[in-house]
Amino acid sequence: MRINAERLWEKLMQIAQIGGTPKGGVCRVTLTEEDRLGRDLFIKWCKEAHLSIEIDQMGNIFAKRAGKNPDLPAVLAGSHLDSQPTGGKFDGVYGVLAALEVIETLNENHIQTQHPIEIVSWTNEEGARFAPAMIGSGVFANQFSLEYAYARTDRTGETLGNALEKIGYKGTIPCGNRSYKAAFELHIEQGPILEAENKSVGIVTGVQGIRWYDLVLNGKETHAGPTPMSYRKDPVKAVLPILTRFYELTEIFADSKLTIGFLDAKPAIRNTVPSQLTVSVDFRHPDEQILTAIHQQATQIVESFSDKNGVTAQLLPIWYSPPVIFDEKCVQAVSEAVQKTGVSARKIGSGAGHDSVYLSKVVPTSMIFIPCKDGLSHNEAESAEKIDVANGTQVLLEAILKMAL
Amino acid sequence: MRINAERLWEKLMQIAQIGGTPKGGVCRVTLTEEDRLGRDLFIKWCKEAHLSIEIDQMGNIFAKRAGKNPDLPAVLAGSHLDSQPTGGKFDGVYGVLAALEVIETLNENHIQTQHPIEIVSWTNEEGARFAPAMIGSGVFANQFSLEYAYARTDRTGETLGNALEKIGYKGTIPCGNRSYKAAFELHIEQGPILEAENKSVGIVTGVQGIRWYDLVLNGKETHAGPTPMSYRKDPVKAVLPILTRFYELTEIFADSKLTIGFLDAKPAIRNTVPSQLTVSVDFRHPDEQILTAIHQQATQIVESFSDKNGVTAQLLPIWYSPPVIFDEKCVQAVSEAVQKTGVSARKIGSGAGHDSVYLSKVVPTSMIFIPCKDGLSHNEAESAEKIDVANGTQVLLEAILKMAL
Repeated sequence: MRINAERLWEKLMQIAQIGGTPKGGVCRVTLTEEDRLGRDLFIKWCKEAHLSIEIDQMGNIFAKRAGKNPDLPAVLAGSHLDSQPTGGKFDGVYGVLAALEVIETLNENHIQTQHPIEIVSWTNEEGARFAPAMIGSGVFANQFSLEYAYARTDRTGETLGNALEKIGYKGTIPCGNRSYKAAFELHIEQGPILEAENKSVGIVTGVQGIRWYDLVLNGKETHAGPTPMSYRKDPVKAVLPILTRFYELTEIFADSKLTIGFLDAKPAIRNTVPSQLTVSVDFRHPDEQILTAIHQQATQIVESFSDKNGVTAQLLPIWYSPPVIFDEKCVQAVSEAVQKTGVSARKIGSGAGHDSVYLSKVVPTSMIFIPCKDGLSHNEAESAEKIDVANGTQVLLEAILKMAL
Repeated sequence: MRINAERLWEKLMQIAQIGGTPKGGVCRVTLTEEDRLGRDLFIKWCKEAHLSIEIDQMGNIFAKRAGKNPDLPAVLAGSHLDSQPTGGKFDGVYGVLAALEVIETLNENHIQTQHPIEIVSWTNEEGARFAPAMIGSGVFANQFSLEYAYARTDRTGETLGNALEKIGYKGTIPCGNRSYKAAFELHIEQGPILEAENKSVGIVTGVQGIRWYDLVLNGKETHAGPTPMSYRKDPVKAVLPILTRFYELTEIFADSKLTIGFLDAKPAIRNTVPSQLTVSVDFRHPDEQILTAIHQQATQIVESFSDKNGVTAQLLPIWYSPPVIFDEKCVQAVSEAVQKTGVSARKIGSGAGHDSVYLSKVVPTSMIFIPCKDGLSHNEAESAEKIDVANGTQVLLEAILKMAL
């Protein structure tokens, strides 16, 4: 039994036209009109596949195929339909439509599983309009309250609750308290490893931990001209040895990652020594103990920092997402599915957050990756090969069958 | 003959209420309603001192006291009345009102000089609303055309020409082509040297040269999670050794100054390696040859930069203001005025640009500095001692008399 690669590809290209950008990307930001149109099309396709639809209070969509035994818990597969403002054609939507392709394959082969199968599309995975990201799966997994989620606002002050209502996707079914046997999320890797190693599939064993900080240096705003260097409290000069040592930590601790996304100087005037510099710091590692060691060393680097002119430095932790280790049986099911499919694969950790991080707290969960071109994602140039898209979906089919038959 | 310190101080405090801020600073941005009110008040005071007023096409204000010999060129003194958006009570306005105090002192002592004396207030010294700065004196000194100046726009798209008309200060007298025997600009130091060395007055010998650059590094936008460090084109990591070496140049070349005002990452998202980093670089030195050497070494540091992952770096020069050496006779007049006044003083270079930089190209010019608290300027906390304000004004009186009697 083989999935239909062409049928899936056509759907991916068709839905990519909703919010399609001139550069070939997608702008289907959560709870916008484009998001509504994307959801509508997905539900239309689900109904054509004879699935029953439920929408919960967070706008998460569940499309169910009955099993032989209605008392057994369903097997879940899916991801999200929303995109970054300048996102690509595969991030999220691939995992949702691949799950639909699995069901269409089962339908045309007249195979009924013991367990029901459900597709899920989570609301606001990206967090591009409403922070935090992954809030639909987060409420589902009791990480946030429904009230908290509804009260999130976008830049215009619109609440997530209102936006859900406006597009007609504020459902009445309680969010959460659904029990599943297993859950699988198929996704592009959003990184370069599979492509570089020429592997078709990644068997995702977990998600690395993330620690976010603001590194804040306070100096003194001073005109660029008159003040000799020896009198200056210059936070830019002071940050250089700190950041140099931070990057050295990534050499000390293998597999660790450091991202400095911005360096925000105030007042950011060309001829003024900044009074303050705020640097975003994102450290990641798959091992909780090593991430803790990095945290301790980074903290010590900043605490032991001293500047003879009196610049002060603080490392303020603002978020910690502990490493996640995916369910052993789910990972095993994916490994066996890979073997059955006969594609090249490797075990891999996820660098990015996914709905599966939250879901794994309440449901046995794992993920499947396929390569994406140049590791690019959150980018209109995001791209994946049709053959990889097909192979990943075939592996998803086999993994679901392993759990649902 | 002594200037009246109280009379000057009262005027300074009175005009500081126009655009006065709750923190004790001043927001009297060029060609705003506040600027108009400040100009109106200044002109009212000039008329009370029996001065004749002329306004040129750039809105520069000239207030003239006749001399005994109408054929002799005038001696000029002044500065500017506009402020930064969060500026202080002394930057600019002190030099204008101190010149007025000099004239009021001459008036009450019934002293008529051989040469006429003029006060000038230049339009848009600060450049906070319309770039470039010092445009009124710049047009006067043939550095910019009148058309160029009129066409400058603020952030709302308003032109400088329209803004001049709106506040009623677009004069009809040609800008430039006025000949003077000498010009003096009295100003707060905007730096810490006089205060640190406990000197009352700075005899300004020139203005250091300034070289502005954009240091642009191009990397590759990458998600913070999945991409291993060894695959990343990270412009932040790449900039650290470059900036470290730039700061080392300030140790190699005594009296040089380096200011990094901002580091502008794109897209400036916490969990994304920036695709581009633009760093503002401001190098200054009073000696043209040394500033050239710094330019060459900085250029070489960037040109020899190589990153194994392919981040590219360019040092793009965007402005060069050569060092200025003030007129020897004017500097001598200030030195003699200092001796006559009996205050402590030192020779000093100006770190910041001033209208006198442009003016010195067409008129024999020099400047006088007084200390300001903590070297702070362009700041609502800008402050100067009443005694220093008085001493500087007394020195200005003596310098003017030296040239005008």
